[in-house]
Amino acid sequence: MKAEIIAVGSELLTPYRLDTNSLFLTDELTQIGVRVIYKSVVGDTPDEMLSTFRYAMDRADVIVSSGGLGPTDDDRTRQTVADLLGRKLVRDDGTLQKIQERFRRFGRPMPEINLRQAMVIEGATVLPNPRGTAPGMWIEANGRIVILLPGVPNELRALVETEVKPRLARLGSKERLYTRELRIVGLFESDVEQRVRALYAAYPDTETTILASAGYIQLHPRIWSDDPAYANARLDELVSRMALALGENLVSTHGETLEEILARVLTENRATVAVAESCTGGLLAERLTHLSGSSAYFLGGVVCYSNELKTSLVGVPAELIAAKGAVSSEVALALADGIRKRTGATLGLGVTGIAGPLGGTPEKPVGLVHIGIADERGPCEKAYRFPGDRERIRHFATQNALDAVRRYYIFPRPAAGAA
Amino acid sequence: MKAEIIAVGSELLTPYRLDTNSLFLTDELTQIGVRVIYKSVVGDTPDEMLSTFRYAMDRADVIVSSGGLGPTDDDRTRQTVADLLGRKLVRDDGTLQKIQERFRRFGRPMPEINLRQAMVIEGATVLPNPRGTAPGMWIEANGRIVILLPGVPNELRALVETEVKPRLARLGSKERLYTRELRIVGLFESDVEQRVRALYAAYPDTETTILASAGYIQLHPRIWSDDPAYANARLDELVSRMALALGENLVSTHGETLEEILARVLTENRATVAVAESCTGGLLAERLTHLSGSSAYFLGGVVCYSNELKTSLVGVPAELIAAKGAVSSEVALALADGIRKRTGATLGLGVTGIAGPLGGTPEKPVGLVHIGIADERGPCEKAYRFPGDRERIRHFATQNALDAVRRYYIFPRPAAGAA
Repeated sequence: MKAEIIAVGSELLTPYRLDTNSLFLTDELTQIGVRVIYKSVVGDTPDEMLSTFRYAMDRADVIVSSGGLGPTDDDRTRQTVADLLGRKLVRDDGTLQKIQERFRRFGRPMPEINLRQAMVIEGATVLPNPRGTAPGMWIEANGRIVILLPGVPNELRALVETEVKPRLARLGSKERLYTRELRIVGLFESDVEQRVRALYAAYPDTETTILASAGYIQLHPRIWSDDPAYANARLDELVSRMALALGENLVSTHGETLEEILARVLTENRATVAVAESCTGGLLAERLTHLSGSSAYFLGGVVCYSNELKTSLVGVPAELIAAKGAVSSEVALALADGIRKRTGATLGLGVTGIAGPLGGTPEKPVGLVHIGIADERGPCEKAYRFPGDRERIRHFATQNALDAVRRYYIFPRPAAGAA
Repeated sequence: MKAEIIAVGSELLTPYRLDTNSLFLTDELTQIGVRVIYKSVVGDTPDEMLSTFRYAMDRADVIVSSGGLGPTDDDRTRQTVADLLGRKLVRDDGTLQKIQERFRRFGRPMPEINLRQAMVIEGATVLPNPRGTAPGMWIEANGRIVILLPGVPNELRALVETEVKPRLARLGSKERLYTRELRIVGLFESDVEQRVRALYAAYPDTETTILASAGYIQLHPRIWSDDPAYANARLDELVSRMALALGENLVSTHGETLEEILARVLTENRATVAVAESCTGGLLAERLTHLSGSSAYFLGGVVCYSNELKTSLVGVPAELIAAKGAVSSEVALALADGIRKRTGATLGLGVTGIAGPLGGTPEKPVGLVHIGIADERGPCEKAYRFPGDRERIRHFATQNALDAVRRYYIFPRPAAGAA
């Protein structure tokens, strides 16, 4: 079965807003074997809506729309689809009761305009909306299935889960999409592509998308199949070959983020971490505290933007900063070691660099970042040069600082005196 | 002139990726008086592409597509549009030379497949691409204008700026879209709507979109007009009425963010700020250092996730934490005052709260956040209760902490002993 997703709403044709419901809908539809082949966005104008729904009914088996079911004059999906199908709108008493109850529950009188939301297309199955006043509708006509959903994301999601998915799953084929999500740190997109292109080309029944996003390169190999065992075996085989090609830069194969990996390895090792960061300005601490429960392994940190604070709060000697410069290997080491000692954490992380766009020099260009990591044996350090703008540089710097902790546990430092 | 934007690419029909080029394109097109009435997304399949371009030529005056101009077998926009128009693909020697030069410059031999990118649709105006190998194309056919652009955002942007916009501007009407962007903090979307609905309804030649995004409520009043003076006067009048209705919750009328406002007021007042934050985990410092040049007014901060660090790094008395709890008015005050004293900043900000989802109690529920602000006269404090999940609570907490600084300068505290 092929689907078209239609997002209705003039605000989705402004430069300010994207239709994001379609990502959720695509995910849910592909899980039950329905392929999304078109997505359309249209405003609230009746003629344009009519054209969009008419074309969709020409070329797709399932049409899923979001939006335009509210109570105001701008909400025209009901009327448009009724017109297109040559059907009438009729009042649904069950829906009317639910709307009235809902207003009663919130202690407000029901405005007259909400009556409109009790009008449904003749012959439609009404899909009750537990989170709002607009019900969804399921209409079978001309061999097509038309599903009208409200545009408010949490209402749409609830309706899809409880009403739409079970109905479609009964109709659909047994074919499903199986996927993996590999996350890679420390390689460029073109490097990753070069390493894995020949591998996925050898699995012609699979498709692999590569994308660069939020500091990761992601690989999404996927396969459509009606045989789960076969699909998973194919993907596992492909992923294990990719893993060999990617080596230690591969951080996860099922979409785990660095934040999640650190939560796991730090907890498993009963370790804590503290940070002293300069150019990343709090972003490293923010990422380490992103997950609930992070207080179990994150003690805290210092954002030492000024040199004085590097000395007074983290104990970096003022002479060291004067001699080597705030952005230096030595200061990164001293930040990592200093914050570890001041907080009693198992590991200290120190970050100093030039996020730009100003402040670069030929010796220390914008994008140069030193990252130190310290344990009880002292600090060790890596320097990076990141391309891009301020935001990108800061993000990559935190990405590599988090990755330094991952590598610390997965590829342990040799003990002092070891071969 | 009415436009349809088509994004080509199978990856845009996965749950992982949205077409964002259309936001940029919409912004640019509306600036020169072209209204976007449809947006479509289609995969790399020839039949489906053909259907999408055919429908677009039925209903729009200008069709702008992105993607599908690369050198591989999956890049089928050229061929599809040529087929649709009944034209041939012909080799463009100027383009071929540019591609060859480009490879020479990077010291690489040109792969055979890149020859394909020198093939253009008969009769098309070739739009040279300064940032990549795929040229754009401008085709006039059947009274329509079809513009084919590469999907890589920086290539697309350069082509739009240098080639597409000037050409369309010559053709288009004098009608332009004029807009304002009001940002509001501290009110719910429904509050804002209630306050301004009657106002914008009184300006029927304008349209206003309200949207909640990143801790702001935004109002986007806009008007299409061929008379700039009239358009700006109408918007200014509407905005000044809105400003009265919104009062001190209105932070800007031209899209300025809190970060930008703080950069301005702190610089104007030659003031500096330092932060001590707990539940926001570094996000407040991160936002204060988001803009380049922030070292002029941001000294640094402490992320004191553990109680020990609140004491050792910020000087909050351990007895105070034991007596009142880490999430308390008193500790927020002590954090603000303590960090101000330890860093010598003009202003100190302290944030303590419960971001959840765990850790709430009936007296101190998830979402409770205390924000302290201190100057040389001592600290003052506000408590907030934010709805939503961890990320939302943290974001709103930083939003209100930044807003506390804005209000400090815009609505000064009365001097001690003043009436």
